[in-house]
Amino acid sequence: MTRPVRIALDAMGGDHGPTVAVAGAGIAAVRHPDTEFILFGDKAVLDPLVSEHPQLEPVTRVVHTNIAVRMGDKPSQALRQGRRRSSMWLAIDAVKQGAADLAVSAGNTGALMVMAKLCLKTMPGIDRPAIAGVWPTLRGESIVLDLGASIGADAQQLVDMAVMGAAMARIVFELERPTVGLLNVGVEEIKGVEEVREAGRILRELDLGGLEYHGFVEGDDIGKGTVDVVVTEGFSGNIALKTAEGTARQLGEYLRAALNRTWRARLGYLLARGALRMVWEKVDPRKVNGGIFLGLNGVVVKSHGGADAEGFASAIDIGYDVVRHELLDRISRSLSQAGTGMRSPAAGRVAS
Amino acid sequence: MTRPVRIALDAMGGDHGPTVAVAGAGIAAVRHPDTEFILFGDKAVLDPLVSEHPQLEPVTRVVHTNIAVRMGDKPSQALRQGRRRSSMWLAIDAVKQGAADLAVSAGNTGALMVMAKLCLKTMPGIDRPAIAGVWPTLRGESIVLDLGASIGADAQQLVDMAVMGAAMARIVFELERPTVGLLNVGVEEIKGVEEVREAGRILRELDLGGLEYHGFVEGDDIGKGTVDVVVTEGFSGNIALKTAEGTARQLGEYLRAALNRTWRARLGYLLARGALRMVWEKVDPRKVNGGIFLGLNGVVVKSHGGADAEGFASAIDIGYDVVRHELLDRISRSLSQAGTGMRSPAAGRVAS
Repeated sequence: MTRPVRIALDAMGGDHGPTVAVAGAGIAAVRHPDTEFILFGDKAVLDPLVSEHPQLEPVTRVVHTNIAVRMGDKPSQALRQGRRRSSMWLAIDAVKQGAADLAVSAGNTGALMVMAKLCLKTMPGIDRPAIAGVWPTLRGESIVLDLGASIGADAQQLVDMAVMGAAMARIVFELERPTVGLLNVGVEEIKGVEEVREAGRILRELDLGGLEYHGFVEGDDIGKGTVDVVVTEGFSGNIALKTAEGTARQLGEYLRAALNRTWRARLGYLLARGALRMVWEKVDPRKVNGGIFLGLNGVVVKSHGGADAEGFASAIDIGYDVVRHELLDRISRSLSQAGTGMRSPAAGRVAS
Repeated sequence: MTRPVRIALDAMGGDHGPTVAVAGAGIAAVRHPDTEFILFGDKAVLDPLVSEHPQLEPVTRVVHTNIAVRMGDKPSQALRQGRRRSSMWLAIDAVKQGAADLAVSAGNTGALMVMAKLCLKTMPGIDRPAIAGVWPTLRGESIVLDLGASIGADAQQLVDMAVMGAAMARIVFELERPTVGLLNVGVEEIKGVEEVREAGRILRELDLGGLEYHGFVEGDDIGKGTVDVVVTEGFSGNIALKTAEGTARQLGEYLRAALNRTWRARLGYLLARGALRMVWEKVDPRKVNGGIFLGLNGVVVKSHGGADAEGFASAIDIGYDVVRHELLDRISRSLSQAGTGMRSPAAGRVAS
């Protein structure tokens, strides 16, 4: 039997804190009996919650800290108050120390990114980590990155993201040569910003074995599933993600209202309820959850702050998957194949 | 009786060309009996199409040109081949010459923007035009700009867009003091790019009478309708728009498949069909159509390239509305109130 996957949880993060984190771990422990958990947070709160989950309790250790990063904290503030002692930092540090294989937090994204970078450091040749998420599409699922780790990206950083995203797609979707597209405002070669055009040129010329460069894609190509991996810088990636979530919620609301307006519609809803629920499950932002930080020397997963227990469990799932499949080793190998690890460190390209 | 609104149409633009443009004009002519049309394009094709619409024929003049900008043309190419003689240029020029009050085209966005800028010129103090669209939300409708007229924007350009978008919202939504938000990756003041933060500072300090500055909004706030006007630069605006369209189509597909899977679901669909259709009408990208170019000395409306006749008619509708309500005069007045018209033209800020 393979050794268990050891998961460090920032049990105090997210809008709902320990209740959701522990219940999420409970669900994940049932799904993956080969896991062990280290929960960081307030022991007085966590112990009773853990004891409610018979599958979780025997595989869980609680490490006490009474310091938690708040959702509204600025990253600098979070660092000042929480470095080396907050539940968020300790969960990440457990990965660095080799006590855990991955860390999961539903806390403040900015703080998590800053702490993860400071504690785990970026992989050789990588200036900035990126957040990658799995996005439901008409063809199945795609990986989209960066969902908001940093603002702006130069051509080489976009190429790095393409390589990292493809390595993840090979694992998560079991593809040999995933297709990769650069998000742009038009498919014609002329359009868009210089960095994106330049990244396109590099990807075409490199002709990497581990990915097939498709060209530019537009916002509506994400949902269509035109490519397996969509690459963009963090500002537009975050806006795309949140806009899609907003649109899904909006349509859900419209449907609810419309299906309640007449008796015919209400009766129709009763009959089609199961089918409608299946659709909602596919796109519910709470379910489609878990952004992986790529480019660090360690696996850190960001769960949606508003995720429920099921959502938090999904975030654990995706981390579990990449650890089981040795994502980091694969990314390293892909990056050195792409020559990225060997390029000279460009001054001024280091993210703030 | 007020004088008619005179509409110049690039009848050759869009994926479907003259068929959709003429049929769209036919619908608009029925809706607004106080309109007149000038159709630019191939007379041999257009004349028979126009004669199929009894309400359109008597108020329409066809001006022949056999040159049309193609959807795939680069703006430079379109200019070289189509300046002063393509259906697109001639429609815009009709506005400049005072022969028409607005121009509508479903053609290539880049070419339309370049031609409109060259022909009509920007308003005093405005460096770059922006494309504004009306977006369906849970609260009703909002205006979002820029949807892709230009890439990147400095703080002052974002402020100009806020002022222009608010002027449009006052007319289209009949609001006295529309709320305006700047699209960003987080609501906390610390996040996002410098230009957006700086624009926020300016808007707060200016404290303009014609708008209420709300602060930062995120992608999911668009669909929520958190503010009446959402301002962002063209790259992220275009990605937000296309991503929302893609998500709406994706959910539509999921629903269609799910409601056809079992006999219960099929029966439910039959009963709820009317309600479901109403939801779709609300968000159908073909229906929610018409991007207005703001900041030019003339009204130009871009219809979605893939719009059907109903969609094209919606684009005409929105142009008709702003002309009837003298949008341009209102924008001018708002800009001079905001002091924008008086600022010194900053070298190097002129869009390419």
